[in-house]
Amino acid sequence: DFEVVCKGLYRALCIREKYMEKSVQRFPRTPSQYLLQGCPCPLSGVEEHSRLVWSWQAACASWYSPFGPVFTPPVKDGQDPFTTEDLEEDLGYHIQMKDGVVYIYSDKAAADRNEPKDLPYPSLEHFIDDMNFLLALIAQGPVKTYTHRRLKFLLSKFQVHEMLNEMEEMKELKNNPHRDFYNCRKVDTHIHAAACMNQKHLLRFIKKSYRVDADRVVYDAKGKQLTLKQLFQQLGLHPYDLTVDSLDVHAGRQTFQRFDKFNAKYNPVGASELRDLYLKTENAINGEYFATIIKEVGSDLEDAKYQHTEPRLSIYGCSAEEWSKLASWFNKHRVYSPNMKWMIQIPRIYDVFRSKNFLPHFGKMLENIFVPVFEATVNPQAHKELSVFLHHITGFDSVDDESKHSGHMFSTKSPKPEQWTCEKNPSYTYYVYYMYANILVLNNLRRQRGMNTFLFRPHCGEAGAVTHLLAAFMTADNISHGLNLKKSPVLQYLYFLAQIPIAMSPLSNNSLFLEYAKNPLPEFHQKGLMVSLSTDDPMQFHYTKEPLMEEYAIAAQVFKLSTCDMCEIARNSVLQCGLSHEEKAMFLGENYQAEGPQGNDIRKTNVAQIRMAYRYETWCYELNLIAEAGGCSSPPDPLDESPASSFTTVPRTGLL
Amino acid sequence: DFEVVCKGLYRALCIREKYMEKSVQRFPRTPSQYLLQGCPCPLSGVEEHSRLVWSWQAACASWYSPFGPVFTPPVKDGQDPFTTEDLEEDLGYHIQMKDGVVYIYSDKAAADRNEPKDLPYPSLEHFIDDMNFLLALIAQGPVKTYTHRRLKFLLSKFQVHEMLNEMEEMKELKNNPHRDFYNCRKVDTHIHAAACMNQKHLLRFIKKSYRVDADRVVYDAKGKQLTLKQLFQQLGLHPYDLTVDSLDVHAGRQTFQRFDKFNAKYNPVGASELRDLYLKTENAINGEYFATIIKEVGSDLEDAKYQHTEPRLSIYGCSAEEWSKLASWFNKHRVYSPNMKWMIQIPRIYDVFRSKNFLPHFGKMLENIFVPVFEATVNPQAHKELSVFLHHITGFDSVDDESKHSGHMFSTKSPKPEQWTCEKNPSYTYYVYYMYANILVLNNLRRQRGMNTFLFRPHCGEAGAVTHLLAAFMTADNISHGLNLKKSPVLQYLYFLAQIPIAMSPLSNNSLFLEYAKNPLPEFHQKGLMVSLSTDDPMQFHYTKEPLMEEYAIAAQVFKLSTCDMCEIARNSVLQCGLSHEEKAMFLGENYQAEGPQGNDIRKTNVAQIRMAYRYETWCYELNLIAEAGGCSSPPDPLDESPASSFTTVPRTGLL
Repeated sequence: DFEVVCKGLYRALCIREKYMEKSVQRFPRTPSQYLLQGCPCPLSGVEEHSRLVWSWQAACASWYSPFGPVFTPPVKDGQDPFTTEDLEEDLGYHIQMKDGVVYIYSDKAAADRNEPKDLPYPSLEHFIDDMNFLLALIAQGPVKTYTHRRLKFLLSKFQVHEMLNEMEEMKELKNNPHRDFYNCRKVDTHIHAAACMNQKHLLRFIKKSYRVDADRVVYDAKGKQLTLKQLFQQLGLHPYDLTVDSLDVHAGRQTFQRFDKFNAKYNPVGASELRDLYLKTENAINGEYFATIIKEVGSDLEDAKYQHTEPRLSIYGCSAEEWSKLASWFNKHRVYSPNMKWMIQIPRIYDVFRSKNFLPHFGKMLENIFVPVFEATVNPQAHKELSVFLHHITGFDSVDDESKHSGHMFSTKSPKPEQWTCEKNPSYTYYVYYMYANILVLNNLRRQRGMNTFLFRPHCGEAGAVTHLLAAFMTADNISHGLNLKKSPVLQYLYFLAQIPIAMSPLSNNSLFLEYAKNPLPEFHQKGLMVSLSTDDPMQFHYTKEPLMEEYAIAAQVFKLSTCDMCEIARNSVLQCGLSHEEKAMFLGENYQAEGPQGNDIRKTNVAQIRMAYRYETWCYELNLIAEAGGCSSPPDPLDESPASSFTTVPRTGLL
Repeated sequence: DFEVVCKGLYRALCIREKYMEKSVQRFPRTPSQYLLQGCPCPLSGVEEHSRLVWSWQAACASWYSPFGPVFTPPVKDGQDPFTTEDLEEDLGYHIQMKDGVVYIYSDKAAADRNEPKDLPYPSLEHFIDDMNFLLALIAQGPVKTYTHRRLKFLLSKFQVHEMLNEMEEMKELKNNPHRDFYNCRKVDTHIHAAACMNQKHLLRFIKKSYRVDADRVVYDAKGKQLTLKQLFQQLGLHPYDLTVDSLDVHAGRQTFQRFDKFNAKYNPVGASELRDLYLKTENAINGEYFATIIKEVGSDLEDAKYQHTEPRLSIYGCSAEEWSKLASWFNKHRVYSPNMKWMIQIPRIYDVFRSKNFLPHFGKMLENIFVPVFEATVNPQAHKELSVFLHHITGFDSVDDESKHSGHMFSTKSPKPEQWTCEKNPSYTYYVYYMYANILVLNNLRRQRGMNTFLFRPHCGEAGAVTHLLAAFMTADNISHGLNLKKSPVLQYLYFLAQIPIAMSPLSNNSLFLEYAKNPLPEFHQKGLMVSLSTDDPMQFHYTKEPLMEEYAIAAQVFKLSTCDMCEIARNSVLQCGLSHEEKAMFLGENYQAEGPQGNDIRKTNVAQIRMAYRYETWCYELNLIAEAGGCSSPPDPLDESPASSFTTVPRTGLL
């Protein structure tokens, strides 16, 4: 039983490693080494050779190797973040979507001959095979028992560690000069641009705009130009009287389990006109207000210095012009802050567009989302604004209410995107697969060109089926939410083994899906899953001027986190995010790519080395169990050569 | 049974009314009216006449009558808060403590003749009688059953009210122009001056002081003068390296159930030298740093505009000079902010002083605490600084770890304070009685002179026996904590009936005595007890720059408070606090003294009238039950003439 279970988990890790490597995303070095030491397992569609090569690459080069993702380096002093001077030349490639995936051809003729360029392309059959293997794995009784027990053990082990070493950890932190929780870097790893200000900030901004701009034409009501004053008159409002209550953009008790009501809250005073005017990039003033608010948020972050944020902007895939419009907004208003890294979120609302006949089929939506990015990648000169914008983009998110069930089961028999013409929404997995597939091709192309690549970081496991978490295990560099890992011990254990970062937002969950005290964050953290804290929507959920600090403070208070816990979570957030190698090295220490205590610079992170050693030993121990039983050769004892052992001078749990 | 129960509760309310009236503290008008309508009950030591007079006074004049407490009016523009120009003249009275209570004589001869001035003096016998009555009452089975059921009913009734009227309340608030939770006034009703800054603020201040003052002599180590640089050298520290971790003034998991450890946390870096230098009023620099930090906190509050705070400064009663030194510190450094009202806290640590032989008996401690205040009241010209200081003082607090059991039972046989020479600490009730007794005489004297009076606002019910809450019921205008009301339904119901304000600090409790999620605040609030939110010790418990907002935000999130709830709690905090009549009228509306919806100005408070009407009707209903059964005449139906009825146009619970 034990051996069969471990073989299954072993193969699951191999699968993730493969999908991450292929798509230029991250897989940690340590499990790669263990996998390499185990027997090569018969992976679907993977040859023995490449299995070894990947692991070797991973082992040598670690997360941020030439083989891993490429992040745009930080803007240097004096350099213009919007410069179009050093844009790459046109490759002249031909781009064409086939079965929902973009293919690259050297020219139109090659496309006609069906001879795509030599780039990795996804294989749907292999994906379905691997997915079916994992689906079977997470349902297997013995695997569930084993992983449940390991997780329980991990939890108790951490608690023992804490009881024995808490004071020692604290001592390390006390002796660490000049660094504490307040001045260690933290990244808000999950936040939507349209709600990145708090309600009070938005209210103040609206009032200010009225004082300055009352007579400016700001709105186009079906051809009728309205000034700000006229717009408010039409709404029967005067901004002076507005309050956060009448603004009504804060989630309350009414929104619990009601994602629909939550979405409606994005309309200030319930008026979509105000959402259009203040929180959109396309409107009569070209999204000027929205840009200004975001820049104010950015400037507050720069003042606070140690906080960064990764706001999401939407691309809907409803029209092919969205990208150029968004890029134009970004460039025109120079929406840049060194403390912000941008992401693109794709709402899963094909069904809405289809029912209004905006789209003929799902393939068109994918085309609208991805083809412009490919075009700008192939010929940056012809898409200057978009190319600059893409430089500042670090990843893609997939968003919407996960609790809505699609009723569709993804398989090889599923209609191809071009054939998906019905009004029904495809399943979460279908969406995720096609996003992953295109990002895979895109990343390989961009890496070839020396351009920055993108991480896939979907919302996942906030609600709905656990299969979402399975799909993300195969395709996503990291995820947001992950609450439903509670429901599947197998996936939870796999997320632990692969150290998949999870941006958790307990205050958001508290308003929408799960009461604060029941949030699994402290449990996940104790077990050793790689969690970070994020705000999701400060406008909707937070009260204070510093939403991320509010998020940390409440977690610290309610979950009784220690300083070491908080600093570890902050460190996780930096590792998880899309900040460049240079910035991460500055914030976490030069050696941050190394796993385990070696990679921790306490002077930067304020995380105790005892904690890091505990985490690394514990992780290696679990990986070793799998590799030993799952492989057939006998791997070396990880503790023998573990860098952690240099720190074992302090009392330990003795459970190893 | 029911009648006996109600008679008991009726008498309990009469007792509180008497003690509040006598000591120039507050008792609300509505229960007074109900008591008046009921039969006069045979109160120990209270004549029929005075019973009626008090009620009449209360009925006509309400809380802030010429008969109620006197608050110092706010400092006018251009006026110096430290002016000694209009100090009252010397009355030439003779002051003498007898049996632990200060008596006032026209002169020394009158004292010898034992002919005190005609002022109300406390009667120990009556107090013990009343206390024994209440002790019996809270232990009676039927009373417990009745009050438990009423409280349960109140809770369910509120929940029904909420379900039916929540949206209506919200509608009222949305239609209320220009006022929301952010710009309605809130008072931090319980905070210690020595921990009123947050940890980060203190750290920054220490670093700044070193940059500016390194070579200044700031410390006297047993005669050896040390500069700031030398002091830090001696401690083996450099301020540049200091962090909030090494500062170590934040409560953590180690402090839970450990009040002793909590107290030790007041020492930055564990060094009492730094506490002396930065957090004390008496030291080699005359408390300059402490005054500066406090003024910085005050200035932040003024910037935030809508937040006020009531910091406590300590008088220990160990020497008679404490008052003049503290007053001198206050005047010298001009420690004034319009957003701060000052209170004096008396730690209950006679046993510590006695064991070190600093005091011969408990009476001396009382003398040190009260006689200087009486002297300054009788002859302000001779105690100018203290008189000015007392103008800014609004009340007394009694503080210490309540979970320490004294083993003493207060009775008529207890030793008088002058005879209390043993090293054992007197009981909580003993302390509280003698503080109350002296405040009673003091307040009456000060009211006669047109001076401001003091409220007694002890820490009570944070831990320890429920008898603490009983003693406060008799003596205190309002209390801090009140957690243990959970343990006595009778007292909880009486606190509800008498609407005794309770300053609750769930974040403090979470670190010391009770996990956040188990805090009774939401339950008390729902039942209709008058609760406010306070921080207790921002230095120890809070993370953000705005501790009071953090307190509200966490309560709102974890307890799922609505905006109306939060604004009601904020309004309670203003009613509870020691702000002047003028300020309260400005912050809550001119009519704030009226009880029920009449007294609410939604434009100022942002509390829905539906909520106020619900509260008032519910309160009247419960009072009526008691008055009907407890008295013998039949009082009019409160709902007939209730001002609330003008608001009954909205859906109601139908439970009345």
